[in-house]
Amino acid sequence: MLVVQKYGGTSVATIERITNVARRVIEYKKRGDGLVIVVSAMSGETDRLLGLAHAIGKFPDEREVDVLISTGEQVTSALLAITLKETGYDAVSVLGHQVPIVTDSVFGKARISDIDETKIRTELASGRVVVVPGFQGVDESGNITTLGRGGSDTTAVAVAAALKADVCEIYTDVDGVYTTDPNITAKARRLDRISYDEMLEMASLGAKVLQIRSVEMAKKYKVPLLVKSSLVEGKGTLVCEEVPDMEQVVVSGVTYNKNEAKVTVNGVPDRPGVATRIFTTLADANIVIDMIVQNVSHDRKTDITFTLGKADAKKAQKIMEGLAIEVGAVTVEVDERIAKVSIVGLGMRSHAGIAAKMFALLFNEGINIEMISTSEIKISCVIDQKYGELAVRALHTGFGLDAEEDVQEEQ
Amino acid sequence: MLVVQKYGGTSVATIERITNVARRVIEYKKRGDGLVIVVSAMSGETDRLLGLAHAIGKFPDEREVDVLISTGEQVTSALLAITLKETGYDAVSVLGHQVPIVTDSVFGKARISDIDETKIRTELASGRVVVVPGFQGVDESGNITTLGRGGSDTTAVAVAAALKADVCEIYTDVDGVYTTDPNITAKARRLDRISYDEMLEMASLGAKVLQIRSVEMAKKYKVPLLVKSSLVEGKGTLVCEEVPDMEQVVVSGVTYNKNEAKVTVNGVPDRPGVATRIFTTLADANIVIDMIVQNVSHDRKTDITFTLGKADAKKAQKIMEGLAIEVGAVTVEVDERIAKVSIVGLGMRSHAGIAAKMFALLFNEGINIEMISTSEIKISCVIDQKYGELAVRALHTGFGLDAEEDVQEEQ
Repeated sequence: MLVVQKYGGTSVATIERITNVARRVIEYKKRGDGLVIVVSAMSGETDRLLGLAHAIGKFPDEREVDVLISTGEQVTSALLAITLKETGYDAVSVLGHQVPIVTDSVFGKARISDIDETKIRTELASGRVVVVPGFQGVDESGNITTLGRGGSDTTAVAVAAALKADVCEIYTDVDGVYTTDPNITAKARRLDRISYDEMLEMASLGAKVLQIRSVEMAKKYKVPLLVKSSLVEGKGTLVCEEVPDMEQVVVSGVTYNKNEAKVTVNGVPDRPGVATRIFTTLADANIVIDMIVQNVSHDRKTDITFTLGKADAKKAQKIMEGLAIEVGAVTVEVDERIAKVSIVGLGMRSHAGIAAKMFALLFNEGINIEMISTSEIKISCVIDQKYGELAVRALHTGFGLDAEEDVQEEQ
Repeated sequence: MLVVQKYGGTSVATIERITNVARRVIEYKKRGDGLVIVVSAMSGETDRLLGLAHAIGKFPDEREVDVLISTGEQVTSALLAITLKETGYDAVSVLGHQVPIVTDSVFGKARISDIDETKIRTELASGRVVVVPGFQGVDESGNITTLGRGGSDTTAVAVAAALKADVCEIYTDVDGVYTTDPNITAKARRLDRISYDEMLEMASLGAKVLQIRSVEMAKKYKVPLLVKSSLVEGKGTLVCEEVPDMEQVVVSGVTYNKNEAKVTVNGVPDRPGVATRIFTTLADANIVIDMIVQNVSHDRKTDITFTLGKADAKKAQKIMEGLAIEVGAVTVEVDERIAKVSIVGLGMRSHAGIAAKMFALLFNEGINIEMISTSEIKISCVIDQKYGELAVRALHTGFGLDAEEDVQEEQ
């Protein structure tokens, strides 16, 4: 087996934890696997380095910030290789520019364009464990780049894809992907497996186990992803291609996001180009919009409502108030006390009545639905934030996701 | 002017100090100079990283240790470039492998074999200040290497040589090269200039201002070295080629080293091959020997005395005791309470009686000389360690090196 393993910052936070990682790597090595290990910076290190840069100025040069913060992963790579060699297993660190992992030149959030697997293959053929720092690459001109937060997941998947590895194991501080946030209901259940598409909806909806870009890439190159805990033993969750029996499960998970705000522009004249004008202006201001709802018009006037990250709410309000005057809208309202609850599942495509059931479950708890948005395998509702956790529990139970009693007791 | 400046660890220890460095760089930039800045790791950083490696094992893999510790200088380079750009001056960091600074593959103490100056020249031509991390290079196979302690000086001189820079300025925490250690006598005086050869003798004898390899390289490529303080203004000391009037000064400095021990092998049979046997055995054990004295023999027996770093004394004693039996020597004595005082000066080559004067100055203070060793521009005496400082002061005054009264008051 050729296995790519990725360890996050908490898994390599101390020399002791790095030693634990080495122990696991050696177990795999003993059973004869070829191993490429992708590591993050020791937890806190990237922030420490960014702190230095921001002590100099608010907008430190992006190229140089990448030179700075890429050292975090370089340090971990060297330490893991040292630990493996110390234990008697041959290992070698291969940095982003040494692989090379070629990216575009968008410093701070570069995208991988090519990975030359020759060097890694040569080292593997010599029996070495290859340690690759995550998060970092090199552009065509030889500048060091970084892939943005969570980029180490992307590195791992890209390396696994380039090598056509049998599996890409992502070690983190949770033991898999759950049907919902275990902090909200003790009945949350670890999924044995989930399809790429479901994982994408789950990730983008607020389940922070895997970086969304890494799941997209895994899907594109059909890399099986196994999410596991580096701290406790367990089977983890396999994120893989859809197989027929997956559709039997109508809803795989319930997600919850309370970091958005809702903006409503009331009394917008219903004429062509107004919506375009609104969302182009927001896009120009670099504001990312999530849900958009526009109702049918009355008296040639309509209301446009959208959600966006809370951090952008004030900025969007100011822009919208200016624009409302220009386009002849009546008022702009901002509501930061909202929550978005969503159900995700491949089965929705072939099962009728899922949306109706969701609405009924919320209604039974006395929860009013403020906005609705749907995709092929997802239904999202915006509700009052105070009902957020209640809604998650109701949907989790209502769609039969609750853990069995005995499993529950184990927790 | 094309100027290479090198800043040591204490000069870049904090963001505030890096800002001071940037301020100085900008002064030079404003007067129209082309500038390449070589930086060390922030002080303490290399030791912190080495501490991590040694927490894993006593002998961490050398290749990986270089990957680890080279990050220290990379961080400083990025921070200085960020600071310069923040202040409105275009700057770019160019790492060892980006230059590239090609070295051999002796990890931890690599030697520079080649510097391609194309990339640096291109950046300079675009009006940028080029920041190069010291201490690091890359071997022919693309592995990261480091040059050993003090290697940043060597990087600076090598870059200056490759670029044929007008001057290589070494900024440190002292304001120049002194006639002797100011901690021993307040009458120590900063030298305005000193020849490469004198500096080499001074450096190897214990004046720790410049790394000896960097002076050798500066001499080889005729790079003028200006040693200055990064903390206070001052003219510093220019280390340069010998010019005729330098010979007027008989003695340029007095150095002092109390980190050596003396080993005496008594009653060695005076037959060919014994000395070879002794020093080959020590070399095989990686023990570096400094002075060697062998007296004429009596009754076909002689005494061989040598000095070496105190850290190696015990090891050498054990080896010598074993060897003494084999070669038929009588006893082995080790004395760790010695000091070596030396006078250095180009003038010795043309002035008679310098050695005699040195011995007389020591005799006048009641100091017994235990060993003597001379080179073309240096005379060293081993004495009892308790007289070390007294000897330095006596020689400093006796050879007319004392600072004028008014200068002394300034201190």
